Amino acid sequence: MTDISNIESSTLPRLQPSLPAELYSDPAVYQEELTKIWYQQWIYAGRVDGLSRPGDYRLTTIGNQTIIITLNREGQVRAFYNTCRHRGAELCQAQQGHFKQDRITCPYHRWSYSLEGALLNTPNLEISNDHHHFGLYPVKCQSWGGNIYINLDSSSPLKLGETADPDFTVLDNWPLEQLKLGHTHQFELACNWKIFWENYLECYHCPGIHPDLCKLVPLYKAALATDRIDPGAELADAVASGIESWTTTGKAISLPFEGLSTEQANAGHTFMELYPNQYIVAHSDYVRQVSISPLSAERTRVTTEWLFSAEAMKDPDFDPAPAIDFSKQVLAEDSWVNELNQRGVTALPHQNGYLVPVEADVGLFHEMYSNWMSQ
Amino acid sequence: MTDISNIESSTLPRLQPSLPAELYSDPAVYQEELTKIWYQQWIYAGRVDGLSRPGDYRLTTIGNQTIIITLNREGQVRAFYNTCRHRGAELCQAQQGHFKQDRITCPYHRWSYSLEGALLNTPNLEISNDHHHFGLYPVKCQSWGGNIYINLDSSSPLKLGETADPDFTVLDNWPLEQLKLGHTHQFELACNWKIFWENYLECYHCPGIHPDLCKLVPLYKAALATDRIDPGAELADAVASGIESWTTTGKAISLPFEGLSTEQANAGHTFMELYPNQYIVAHSDYVRQVSISPLSAERTRVTTEWLFSAEAMKDPDFDPAPAIDFSKQVLAEDSWVNELNQRGVTALPHQNGYLVPVEADVGLFHEMYSNWMSQ
Amino acid sequence: MTDISNIESSTLPRLQPSLPAELYSDPAVYQEELTKIWYQQWIYAGRVDGLSRPGDYRLTTIGNQTIIITLNREGQVRAFYNTCRHRGAELCQAQQGHFKQDRITCPYHRWSYSLEGALLNTPNLEISNDHHHFGLYPVKCQSWGGNIYINLDSSSPLKLGETADPDFTVLDNWPLEQLKLGHTHQFELACNWKIFWENYLECYHCPGIHPDLCKLVPLYKAALATDRIDPGAELADAVASGIESWTTTGKAISLPFEGLSTEQANAGHTFMELYPNQYIVAHSDYVRQVSISPLSAERTRVTTEWLFSAEAMKDPDFDPAPAIDFSKQVLAEDSWVNELNQRGVTALPHQNGYLVPVEADVGLFHEMYSNWMSQ
Repeated sequence: MTDISNIESSTLPRLQPSLPAELYSDPAVYQEELTKIWYQQWIYAGRVDGLSRPGDYRLTTIGNQTIIITLNREGQVRAFYNTCRHRGAELCQAQQGHFKQDRITCPYHRWSYSLEGALLNTPNLEISNDHHHFGLYPVKCQSWGGNIYINLDSSSPLKLGETADPDFTVLDNWPLEQLKLGHTHQFELACNWKIFWENYLECYHCPGIHPDLCKLVPLYKAALATDRIDPGAELADAVASGIESWTTTGKAISLPFEGLSTEQANAGHTFMELYPNQYIVAHSDYVRQVSISPLSAERTRVTTEWLFSAEAMKDPDFDPAPAIDFSKQVLAEDSWVNELNQRGVTALPHQNGYLVPVEADVGLFHEMYSNWMSQ
Repeated sequence: MTDISNIESSTLPRLQPSLPAELYSDPAVYQEELTKIWYQQWIYAGRVDGLSRPGDYRLTTIGNQTIIITLNREGQVRAFYNTCRHRGAELCQAQQGHFKQDRITCPYHRWSYSLEGALLNTPNLEISNDHHHFGLYPVKCQSWGGNIYINLDSSSPLKLGETADPDFTVLDNWPLEQLKLGHTHQFELACNWKIFWENYLECYHCPGIHPDLCKLVPLYKAALATDRIDPGAELADAVASGIESWTTTGKAISLPFEGLSTEQANAGHTFMELYPNQYIVAHSDYVRQVSISPLSAERTRVTTEWLFSAEAMKDPDFDPAPAIDFSKQVLAEDSWVNELNQRGVTALPHQNGYLVPVEADVGLFHEMYSNWMSQ
Repeated sequence: MTDISNIESSTLPRLQPSLPAELYSDPAVYQEELTKIWYQQWIYAGRVDGLSRPGDYRLTTIGNQTIIITLNREGQVRAFYNTCRHRGAELCQAQQGHFKQDRITCPYHRWSYSLEGALLNTPNLEISNDHHHFGLYPVKCQSWGGNIYINLDSSSPLKLGETADPDFTVLDNWPLEQLKLGHTHQFELACNWKIFWENYLECYHCPGIHPDLCKLVPLYKAALATDRIDPGAELADAVASGIESWTTTGKAISLPFEGLSTEQANAGHTFMELYPNQYIVAHSDYVRQVSISPLSAERTRVTTEWLFSAEAMKDPDFDPAPAIDFSKQVLAEDSWVNELNQRGVTALPHQNGYLVPVEADVGLFHEMYSNWMSQ
């Protein structure tokens, strides 16, 4: 048998090397990614409208860190590590709840804190006036478009939105802040979080994996994810003629958002990535947000949220199922190939994969990743 | 938002730092603790009266070591690693049993040993007279108060009782050796073994966590674990007036032990710690022993034993449930906070907790721990 | 108590030290064994006759490597890593199947390869003529006696059969290639793979562990595995008078294979080891093959295959149960002691076991192992 493994990709000059294979399964690399990426970047942490009044809270996790997201007395978002300053006990056990009387109280020794994190009371221990500075460990938080983002690096110079592609303005015409969370879907994927992004960033797999999606978007049938990659092509980055939105029927599930340009309404979809953990797809009738959370080198949690207008949700005849079902189908198709990609990369001779030209966006993601990791 | 994390505990001058947070979850620290503490200190290994005649045995574990505890022909306690000298096979599979004909026989190749561990017989292999020296790996063992203690460090200079606080004499008036094991309760706790001790060693949490116990012991309602901490306080380290013992009814479950002083009988409880794995609470009518066994950096097994007088147990009307149920309730209340303490200590900015003055005994435990680990 | 642990095996001069105890449980040693042994030696990978026509395939695993075994257009065995050259996706999901139209197609982006592993087609990407060299990662494979063997070290100088003991010719009189796979039995053992071999290589345990087997083979009742060990002994390495084969009845399950010598037919069993993962026992009426696959430092998968003549299997009255049941019983007896051996070797003072003279073959295995690991 001819040994064909020695003949390298030089024979395929249009291929670019992908990331080294060990980056997808090595637990030490995963720990380094937590430190250099997930604990330094802005991370999506849920919708603002899940918290309706001061003292409402919910928990969110990044890596092995659990964070309390709450509203202060002025209704502003505040975030703290879920840990008491006294002896490190966990403050909140439930995934969501309400802090009574605007106090965050540790169940262990009853130390209590204000909604700003200031130490208010320490039973059986007199504290002087400046003791209120001995407060909860704060976490930077900010909101945009009705979304909450947090950053565990308290001295981070990064501004929210720096990793957005394109930038936030691309969604200016959507009333993101006013939209309501209509449905949430969460599952765990047996793959590294980078494999999730690689799959999302190319449509080379679309013709074989997403036949129904390809009917909606002719560009995808040509294996192109965006018209940027092949600007000379005749196909637009838009849904086919007669298709209104990404639904099982091809029809919109509600009236289009009012502020959209004709081009935006006709495109049927507008994408924005917010690395490392979220992408948003704005359709003319609904908005879908997908966020990921790494659980280990080979495991990732995926959360999808469907946002609708308050008007649509008030309509007794409103049926979002065609939108929800369609997205779930596409996610399931991708999940299958993401998991088989993970299983294949640990082959001994597989030092790295290769990217074909229409996978150029994957290469850009790898550049960003390498920059993060080389800091 | 004001960054309140930079203002340190200097603003709370009466607080002392607790142990560094990584000591509660790092697997490498756990391994070091096994080597420097658990495999060097005297460890409680069950009651003598569980073994009634020569050749009776039971197994006990410390870390990943399994030890056979048995009685020799003279009825003296002997202990050996559960491993054959030939090829390292496990000798005993059952948690308890009896060695027939005073022989410990390996099931694999039938090598057999005396109850002193001496090699007696090797099938199909002639052995000379001095071969009996090729014996089982022995473990140091000693008994006190009807309890068996073992020490895996065969060259240990430590005497049993050196880590007792107060020393063994505090229980001189209790007939420990004659007491019978009436009930055993065992469970696993999702926390580091040091968190178990920290919780045990302070009553700062008592008012919030143990309301029923606080009714029995007024000192605890004042968040004090012992009257040593605040000698000027008026509260004695004793049960409330009208309370006889630690039971759900407040009444004793049997007559008081005969040899107790009036002070001991009235106190309602006398404590002795035997670090690193046992504490004993002697009441006027029963004795409770709690021992721990570390399973991993974040997991600990807790065993509680209730000891009663033989006379009480012979009484057909004897009902130990009020004593057993009360202790189980207090243990369950502590287990809840122990586990939430464990979950909180891994927050990134949490370098260490702080001890308030009434938690002074926790600090003394940390001193002892640090001495052990720095050897 | 006398400390008897200091008196070493010098008092048992006929004992030879076994391997250091940490080699049986250390995950780092296990990884080194994968690299130095399992990824370098020839490994049994199933019967040829499981693949009947070109394009049939099945998967096999060595350590964490999954390999595709298939037949090319000429019916020759070919083996490849189960990984696509494009981006490392897993090619085959099912444990066995058929490649339609002689093409191995990656499910992710539809790259396809010939049954020789050559790249044939890359959708949406023009490839030049020499692109077919950019093929699947090949694995060396060879067949002998109807068995397929693979070697992950593509530059290995080792010839198949170099580790056979005795060499392949010992089975020349058996029609191995023509035999049919009649039954397969697989289970996981909670022990290191070397413990499996150590048990197989000595019969010192036979009198106590295998009473029924000892009735069939008097040599085993004398604790001897082969007559090589004690050539002066009167016992032959053969079944007892009146016994025809290794079955629950002692009777053969079919006519003896035609080519056997009288000595071979009378012996009742002929053994061949093929290190590190297979041994074959050729009886006069059937052949049994046992292969192992390490799963972790303390876990091993065992697969037993029973091979019968095609003629016997065609006979409507053919009943292989006496052969299958007997082997399963012996395997179960060995499994029990293999697992208790594993549990005992981690005792702190147990630095190594000792081999008695009749365990000499275990020592030879250790020599081979040490040579492999010292490379």
